[in-house]
Amino acid sequence: MTSSIASGSGPRRSRADRARQVADVLHQQVISGAFGTGVLPDERLLAAEFGASRNTVREALDILRAEGLIDRVPGLGTVVVNRKYAHGLNQLTGLAETLSAHGEVSNEIRVATQVRPPTAVARRLGVPPHEPVVYVERLRRLGELPLSLDLTYLVPDIGLPLLEADLRNTDIFALIEHISGQPLGTAEIGIEALNADAHSAALLEVPAGAALLVLERLSRLDDDRPVDLEYIRFRGDRLTLRALATR
Amino acid sequence: MTSSIASGSGPRRSRADRARQVADVLHQQVISGAFGTGVLPDERLLAAEFGASRNTVREALDILRAEGLIDRVPGLGTVVVNRKYAHGLNQLTGLAETLSAHGEVSNEIRVATQVRPPTAVARRLGVPPHEPVVYVERLRRLGELPLSLDLTYLVPDIGLPLLEADLRNTDIFALIEHISGQPLGTAEIGIEALNADAHSAALLEVPAGAALLVLERLSRLDDDRPVDLEYIRFRGDRLTLRALATR
Repeated sequence: MTSSIASGSGPRRSRADRARQVADVLHQQVISGAFGTGVLPDERLLAAEFGASRNTVREALDILRAEGLIDRVPGLGTVVVNRKYAHGLNQLTGLAETLSAHGEVSNEIRVATQVRPPTAVARRLGVPPHEPVVYVERLRRLGELPLSLDLTYLVPDIGLPLLEADLRNTDIFALIEHISGQPLGTAEIGIEALNADAHSAALLEVPAGAALLVLERLSRLDDDRPVDLEYIRFRGDRLTLRALATR
Repeated sequence: MTSSIASGSGPRRSRADRARQVADVLHQQVISGAFGTGVLPDERLLAAEFGASRNTVREALDILRAEGLIDRVPGLGTVVVNRKYAHGLNQLTGLAETLSAHGEVSNEIRVATQVRPPTAVARRLGVPPHEPVVYVERLRRLGELPLSLDLTYLVPDIGLPLLEADLRNTDIFALIEHISGQPLGTAEIGIEALNADAHSAALLEVPAGAALLVLERLSRLDDDRPVDLEYIRFRGDRLTLRALATR
């Protein structure tokens, strides 16, 4: 057996390999709140814990720093500077609903109007071609910071009454259930990681190229009718998705 | 009602806003294989379909080009140059199992050895502190191109026999089930989007900073015992995750 986590068998592993191995564990500890005080153990303690050299630990901390998770504060050490929020994938919930324990979600309504949808959108929503649908574009914030940019297409019988509602302070899911008089049923979700284009980055207040979690989500009412097609860009540094898979 | 998808109510929307709106729909059409021949309709047709100007369509295509999804080929037009594969999140399956229809998954075994795990890993796996576990690091390819870099910790009673197995050509999930004599049960999955550090980027053959889908996954046997903790970096340009959520 090798004497520590960070060495390996066979040819000697590079420090970068060992640093990544340490960084992955530390990253999960940080985002799960394992360092309650927000201050990480010092490099000497981390080196002992991981059976790694202090140079390796320093390189691992550099990776977390580049991710924007931690920073060095003179006199304090290495501190957690970014909080990531978890959004469950198995249960269909709105953002304000999910994050209610963490603060208020506010929505800047960039567009809310009727549009003639492209064929691909009409087909996904099951509406006849050329029939107008409702389009809503929101920049969503938790506290002061942007969390996501959401482009939403809604079937007209739900979307039109929804245009009269308080979109600024209410999840669209809650409004759909109120208007339709039935609960939502299921949603099909596609998840990608993409580098932010310059304009989306500026809106989300991240550097161009920042990693985004990008979702396409088609939500259906309890009776299985598709009603809501969304294209969502989440800031990668602010959100973690959680899922439970079964064999 | 506005006359097209790409305009909006209220103050005039910028072209970048309209281009994003078109790009999101086109992006999903490309990755779902809507353009069977691999050639996109020309700009004039796309402009009519989206009710957008040709300049807006061109800017939307630029976004997809920056994502590496499409490219312009003289004499042919705009063609799809990248295939993204879907990996389901609700059902716990190995990568080779999931992608068997698309080709062979091969694994470059970078490390396969016993290690003394850090406390955080021992705790997640439910093994006593200081008890050695098995560590496997794999660069996984579909065809010639890297798909993911996987760092895996396994409980010793399963990990030690697994070190003798054909790790190069077999999913670890299949080996766990064979060795334990029971099916896997569930897995808790955390999903993030992160920019690749320089060293991971080089291994995955993407530019430094490329968006990665990063998963932490703790898998349990049918009897609920955690046995396998993985840290997975998927190339964002090669993989889409799919989930079904219920209200």
